[in-house]
Parts: sequence; C-alpha cells; structure tokens
Amino acid sequence: MTEPLAFSLSRPAALTRVPQWDFEADVIVVGFGAAGACAALEAARVGARVLLIEAAAGSGGTSAMSGGEIYLGGGGGTPIQRSAGFEDATEDLYRYLVMIGGPNADAAKARLYADNSLSHYQWLTAQGIEYKNSYIAERCIEPATDDCLIWSGSEEAWPFAEQARPAPRGHCPKFVGMGGGRYVMDLLARRVAEAGVQVRYDARALALIADGSRAVHGLVARIDGTARYARARRAVVLCAGGFIMNREMVKQHAPWLLRSQFPLGTVDDGSGIRLGASVGGAMVNMHEGFATIPWYPPGSLVKGIFVNGNGQRFINEDCYHGRVSNYILRQPGDRIWLLEDNTTYAVGEMQQLAKMEIGAAGDTWDEVERELHLPEGALVETVKLYNRNAAQGVDPLFRKARKWLKPLDEPPFVALDCRIDHCFYASFTLGGLDTLPTGEVLDAERNVIPGLFAAGRTACGLPRWGEGYSSGLSLADATFFGRQAGMRAALTARQG
Amino acid sequence: MTEPLAFSLSRPAALTRVPQWDFEADVIVVGFGAAGACAALEAARVGARVLLIEAAAGSGGTSAMSGGEIYLGGGGGTPIQRSAGFEDATEDLYRYLVMIGGPNADAAKARLYADNSLSHYQWLTAQGIEYKNSYIAERCIEPATDDCLIWSGSEEAWPFAEQARPAPRGHCPKFVGMGGGRYVMDLLARRVAEAGVQVRYDARALALIADGSRAVHGLVARIDGTARYARARRAVVLCAGGFIMNREMVKQHAPWLLRSQFPLGTVDDGSGIRLGASVGGAMVNMHEGFATIPWYPPGSLVKGIFVNGNGQRFINEDCYHGRVSNYILRQPGDRIWLLEDNTTYAVGEMQQLAKMEIGAAGDTWDEVERELHLPEGALVETVKLYNRNAAQGVDPLFRKARKWLKPLDEPPFVALDCRIDHCFYASFTLGGLDTLPTGEVLDAERNVIPGLFAAGRTACGLPRWGEGYSSGLSLADATFFGRQAGMRAALTARQG
Repeated sequence: MTEPLAFSLSRPAALTRVPQWDFEADVIVVGFGAAGACAALEAARVGARVLLIEAAAGSGGTSAMSGGEIYLGGGGGTPIQRSAGFEDATEDLYRYLVMIGGPNADAAKARLYADNSLSHYQWLTAQGIEYKNSYIAERCIEPATDDCLIWSGSEEAWPFAEQARPAPRGHCPKFVGMGGGRYVMDLLARRVAEAGVQVRYDARALALIADGSRAVHGLVARIDGTARYARARRAVVLCAGGFIMNREMVKQHAPWLLRSQFPLGTVDDGSGIRLGASVGGAMVNMHEGFATIPWYPPGSLVKGIFVNGNGQRFINEDCYHGRVSNYILRQPGDRIWLLEDNTTYAVGEMQQLAKMEIGAAGDTWDEVERELHLPEGALVETVKLYNRNAAQGVDPLFRKARKWLKPLDEPPFVALDCRIDHCFYASFTLGGLDTLPTGEVLDAERNVIPGLFAAGRTACGLPRWGEGYSSGLSLADATFFGRQAGMRAALTARQG
Repeated sequence: MTEPLAFSLSRPAALTRVPQWDFEADVIVVGFGAAGACAALEAARVGARVLLIEAAAGSGGTSAMSGGEIYLGGGGGTPIQRSAGFEDATEDLYRYLVMIGGPNADAAKARLYADNSLSHYQWLTAQGIEYKNSYIAERCIEPATDDCLIWSGSEEAWPFAEQARPAPRGHCPKFVGMGGGRYVMDLLARRVAEAGVQVRYDARALALIADGSRAVHGLVARIDGTARYARARRAVVLCAGGFIMNREMVKQHAPWLLRSQFPLGTVDDGSGIRLGASVGGAMVNMHEGFATIPWYPPGSLVKGIFVNGNGQRFINEDCYHGRVSNYILRQPGDRIWLLEDNTTYAVGEMQQLAKMEIGAAGDTWDEVERELHLPEGALVETVKLYNRNAAQGVDPLFRKARKWLKPLDEPPFVALDCRIDHCFYASFTLGGLDTLPTGEVLDAERNVIPGLFAAGRTACGLPRWGEGYSSGLSLADATFFGRQAGMRAALTARQG
C-alpha cells in the first residue's frame, strides 16, 4: 500500500495506478456540512449509492456553527413572509441576488435560486426543520428567541432598495437562542442516515483520482489511518468548506481578511478547492470574503455614525452589518469609531461580545475629538455636516434612510471603539471553484470537468462579494446547490 | 495529426499521446517580451538549445509598449545614482521592495533582487542599453528627453520614507521621448538573435505536454497554422504576459480593474497563467493590478488635493501616481476631483492625455462646491481643514510631506475632473503563477512542478500590490527574473 504522504491535494492520483478499490459508490461526497448533507441526501434519493466522507469526528461542519438562518423568499413569499405582510416577488429576490453578487455576479445561479426558493423552503420543512410563524421587525443579527423571520441583509438600504423591493428573507429555525445551525444539521444528518448513505468520519480526502483526460473517478482518503482508494462510479462532490482556516492560503488570495482576527471555520483548510484545482478547476473571486463586527442590536445604534481614523464617514450605517464592516476593513489604519449621543447610545450583548468599549466621551464633540487625538475639526466638522442634514431628514452623501436620521446633538457624546486589531471581527471566505448551477466544476475556459461537482463554500456560489453578503445566504446556497449537485451527480453517466 | 481545437490551455496534453516531435530544444520559452528575451538569452548562453515562440508577428510584447524604465539601485548606488548624489544602500532597496509587495510580499525575491540589482544594471548595459548620466529632480512620469534617473515611486512619501531611506531608482534608457521600451526590446532582440536562439513568430501555445506526474515535457503550439509538438528536453519557461486583455478573466479575478478603461497589453490574454495552472501551478494575488491616471507633471499639481464624490480627501497626494490612482479606484462612485488654486494650477501634456478637464471653477470654494452639486460644507470644510494645517506645514491626517503643503487659498480655484468613467486610467494585472526566485513554478503546497518555469507578468513577482507599484518595477522584474528562469531552466536535469 502506498503511503499517504505520497498523495497531494494539488495533484490527482493516476487512475491507472490504483492498486485496488477499497470502497465503491456511485457518488462520493466530501464533507458533512450543509452542502454535503444535502448533496448526499438528494443523490441517495434518486437511487445512487452514496459514500460521504468527513474529516472531523462528527457531522455538521461549519454550518453547525452558524445560526441556522436561511435566506428564502420570492414566488409571492414564503408562508412566514406572507403572514408578516410581505408578498415577496421572485423578480425582487432575483434582482437583489444579482446586486449582492457584485461585479462578478452569477446570474444563472441567482435565476435558479430565485425561481425555486419557495419550493426549497418546502423541501427544508419536509426534512423536519420547523419555522415558527413569527416576524421580528427590529434590527437584529440572530433572534435570542425561537422566532423566525428577520431582516438579514441590506434590502432596505441604499442602493439595494432602489432596484429591488425590500422584504425580510432571513428564516431562522424554531430553536431558542443562538446555535440553530446545530439544530438544522442534526435534522439533516438524521435524514442522511435514513436515506442509507454510507458515512465515514475521521476520513480525510488526500487526492482525487483522475484519468489522462482529467476525468475524476474517485479519490484517495485517509480512513482508519490508512490511504484507501474509493471509486466513484458516477461523480465526486466536493463540499469541504472554504479556506479561512488556511492562513497561508488567505494570505495569498485575500490578505485583507487577515485583518479580521476571528476566522469562522471548522476544517475549512481549502482542501476542497485545492482538490478541484488539481484537475483544472478554476478558482474565482478568491479575494472575496465576509468579515463583520456585530455592532447592532440595539437598533438605536444605527442612528449613530461610523468614522475612520481620519474622522471621516464612509458608509450609510443602515445597511447590513457585514457591508458596513467590509467598508470598515478598507479604511486606512486600524482605528474606527461609532459615534452616538445620549439618545442613541445603548449597550447590548453584541457590543460586549465584540469588545466595543467607549473610546472617548464628552459633553461636546470637540472634547471627543481631542480625546481621540484627532486634528482640530476632523471629527467636529463631520458631525456638524451630518447633523445639519439629518435635521432635515436627508443624508445627501451616504443616503442613510430617513428613519435612521437624527442629529447627534444631545450630550453626553460617545465614540465606541471598533479597532480592527482589538475587537471581534469574524470572517470567512467567499471565493471558490467556478461551477454551473448544477454544481459541475468548470475549468478556466468554462468547460465541465467530467465526474466532478462542488457546492457550499468550496464553490463560488450566490454569496461571492463581501459588500453584498446577507445573513442566511451561505446556508441557502449550500443547501440548495448542494441538492442540485447531488441530484445531477447521481444522474451522471460515464462516457466511454 | 490532431486538430488544434482538441487542445486546451487548461488541460495538458498527455506525453504518451504525442505522435511525434516536430520541434526539439533544451528549453522552450513562450513569449518574446522582456522576460522571454532575457530567459532565452541566459539559457542560450549557458549552452542550451533554445526555441522561443511568440504569438505575435514580431518581438517586444507589452514590454515594448512601456517607457523602458527599469527600477535599479542598492549596493551603494548605480553609477547614475552615485553621480546624482545618492548612495543607495542595498538594505534600503530591500526594505522598499518588501513594503511595496504589500501583505503578501515575496521577501525571497526582494532579497535576491536587492542583492543583485547593481550587477543587473551592469548586465543591462552589457546588452547595449545606454543610460545617460543624468538626473531629473522634478516629478515626472517619463522624461520627454533622453535623461535617465527619475523618482518613479513613493520613496519620499509616507509611509515608505519612514522605513527605507529614499533614492530615485527609475532608470530610463538613453532614448529621446516616450517609447524607450521599444528601444530596449530591439536591443534585447538583437542579442537573442546573436545567441542563436531559434525564434518562431505567429506561434501560439495551445497546451502543455505533461506526463502522469504532471512534469512538463514540452508544449503543443500552432505554428504555420498547424498544431505542432515541441519537445523541451529540460524545461518550458512561460513568459506570456498577464491577463489584462482577457476581460472575462479580469472579471473573475480582479473586477475592480474593469473600472479602468485602458488596458495596457498586447497579447496578455492570461494564456501563460492558464497553461501553468493546467499542471497545478498556483495562481496568487490574482485580484491585484496596477491602474493609474497620469495626473502630474507639472509637479505644482501635487500641492493640490484629491477629493472623492463626497468631498473627502483620501490619500497623501505626494505619493506615486499609481498609488494615488489605486486609492481613487476604491472610492465610492465614479466622481473624483483634483482641487488646485491659482498658484498651483497648471496644465501639461499629461492632463490632456488623461482628458482631465476643469469640472468647476470659482472665486471661492463655496462656488466650486455648489458647481459640483455637493452638499453645503462637504468640500468647503475639507479644504478649510487642509488649509489650516498646511499653513502650519503639517498634514496630520494624510501626512503629505511638508514641501508639498500650501494652503489652497489664492483664487480662482478649480476642480479638475478625474472621473473614472471618462478619463484615461491605464491598467495591467499583477497576479500570476507562484514561483521561486529561480522561476520554478509552484503548486498550492509550494512544491516545484518539474520542467516548468515562469517569469514576467505570467508570474507573481516583485510588483504584486497595486498600492505599492512603482514605475520600472515590471521591467526590472521581467528582465531580472527572466534571466534567473532561463539560467535555471537550462541547467535543469530531468529525473528518471
């Protein structure tokens, strides 16, 4: 038996050199997060024999670390949206998804998802995921309760609201408090077991197995401590997460994400992406990522303004926290403050979690400015300009919506310290393998690589632009496109 | 004979399926720009039989479109630097090169280049490139004369000057006016011919030829309209430029560069990078690029200030034009102005070339602000703050050096229009294949791919960060690391 060390994520093993098949299946899925679970489920349900390998000792992956929120809508609205009074049109969802895809949006994936999001909601509930028929109008990141529908993106903020009618689309499962991702994954894992999927834990993919035309025929995995040859009669589906935990890879592709000190990941070592690249899979949007400081609720804080180390504003503060944070991370220097006055200031759990403390306070903005060691006028003039316009209900520079505009003129004043090198900025990557909506992996010329699929953060899916990310998008993408990949992989016919 | 259409840049042809060798050489170089010329020259000079293929009908590539300027120094200074009074220490050059490499700098390449830049100067002159012993102290982009030494980066500007003692390092060849790149390339082409390199023009690489261990043994090229098999007994060296002309690839990897409407390239279709990736070569820094509007000389303009569409400053204007432009391209919106007063305003050829026209003028900054349709105070307060500090010789927010600080207080005032969607912003890519300083191409695990080298913009070299680019860096990198790749490729021994 060849030693594991002889294999490389970056180089496929030759089909002609496989000594024997230790495992055989129609479809092999790598990774037991949301994408892998859904791919395995759908493949098994159309009759494929499925082997699911997971590097960790149990199911869940990074999906289980999430809040379990899924971005759903369109088709006139999910039952929860409709109860809350939102008739969410498919075209509004589509336009929003294209906008938040940024300059390299994948319109085909946005189209497929918008058209089928409602039926995906039904599929999710059919798996046993429960949603309470409730809506939270207030700004929040994740409900502390078991409530369902929340505003989880920048739908109501400029420029998104101008092009797509806003609706809340974040669907949180009926699970009290944070940790809904674990609840969702436990349900999916139960369905996977029922569907007869063969699961191997502590099983790490070492290399793909490809023929001379780079078609994928299986993989080498370390199972029970030994390199094993696993044959995929139809296809391999890579659902092994992103690369946020591989700091060298982050440095090479998205070094700005290194500024965020809290990578959100479990395995997420880029191995799925690298396996795909080893047979010519194109990696796209590799510089993109999500990074955020959870700075609200309470929603009154949104009436404050962010300034950079030069005392300048830079964003309409009413957009999604991840969009605000994306702008924060491209400001020069590490210093960022959130300015509030006596009526808007409040502290919630989030600010404690984020380590946002009071950096300066005073009875005038001059005092605050001096305490922050800013040059005379740098902060005072920013506030003065904002206040003058806010008093008239406008924000001509950054276009914060009227309902969040209030002059910051009631002392005492505070500057909340949001230093990038001190506070909690969480991050994950959004770049990955280029795929069709079916999950088929593409090379740089957008030719399909036979026998290879990818979904979840191993692929570059709907969420692919840090400025556009909205909560629930990654799980929406992982579950929905995981399903597409599983179905298509199971129906793949080998040529020749 | 197999049809050319059967080959793909993204998929190597199998060595076992090569029907015959139509060409044989020790080293095959792809691309006859500066990197390819130097690689071919050095390979031939250590005794290798070299085949150089070029997709265009003649030599030069994108290098010939440049000013021919090369970034050189260290070792106490080149003869030109020393005559001008600059004893440029190797360590200062090294520190500058690391700084301008950004968050993913390649310290090993910076080290090798800093240690050998002086001898590279001697090598260049030995090829016949002449340098006039002259120095231009004034800010310029390229001399209109045949003068040599210029300040071509951000050496004197914050934050660079704090960490590396500044010296001018842009060495322009003795050639009157723009177009020195053609002069340099014609000389190198003459040397290539003398060295006995076999050159084929109109010869386009279609695919690499690799064995089962992805070692590279040659390539398929369309020569005389037909797919030909060319054997590289030792190695293939990819010097085929960047990917700025491949707009789809730019969209996938560096969409922000699409904002610049003048791509600087000849072939530069990413084919070199894709060939490297087809055998597992890792692409790094793919989101990085150079983009600039040539906004000086005259140097008096540097005393003005740039503001974005919100009337905010964003950079110390005394740094290199490409660094300023990099910041311009990340400002929100398309509107950018350069504010000048009666004493600093001047128009030179550059502003005409760049289509920088007067966007607004007035006897007060209030008038200018209104004419630009900016909210009351947005621009006026920015100027007021700048002027107050400039009068005291300081720029506490952006740290422009004292010699460029002058209050903009003498009417009339102008706002030069630098709109991104209207003016001339030139661009090229800086991402490419990961390589060792020897030019050996690396996979994602930084293992060397046998038989494959890359240099110039096909590799990710010294210039790899838009914020740090300095004129002359790309030709310095292409010529120097082209030489390293050629030498090492010629001395490569095949295993087995």
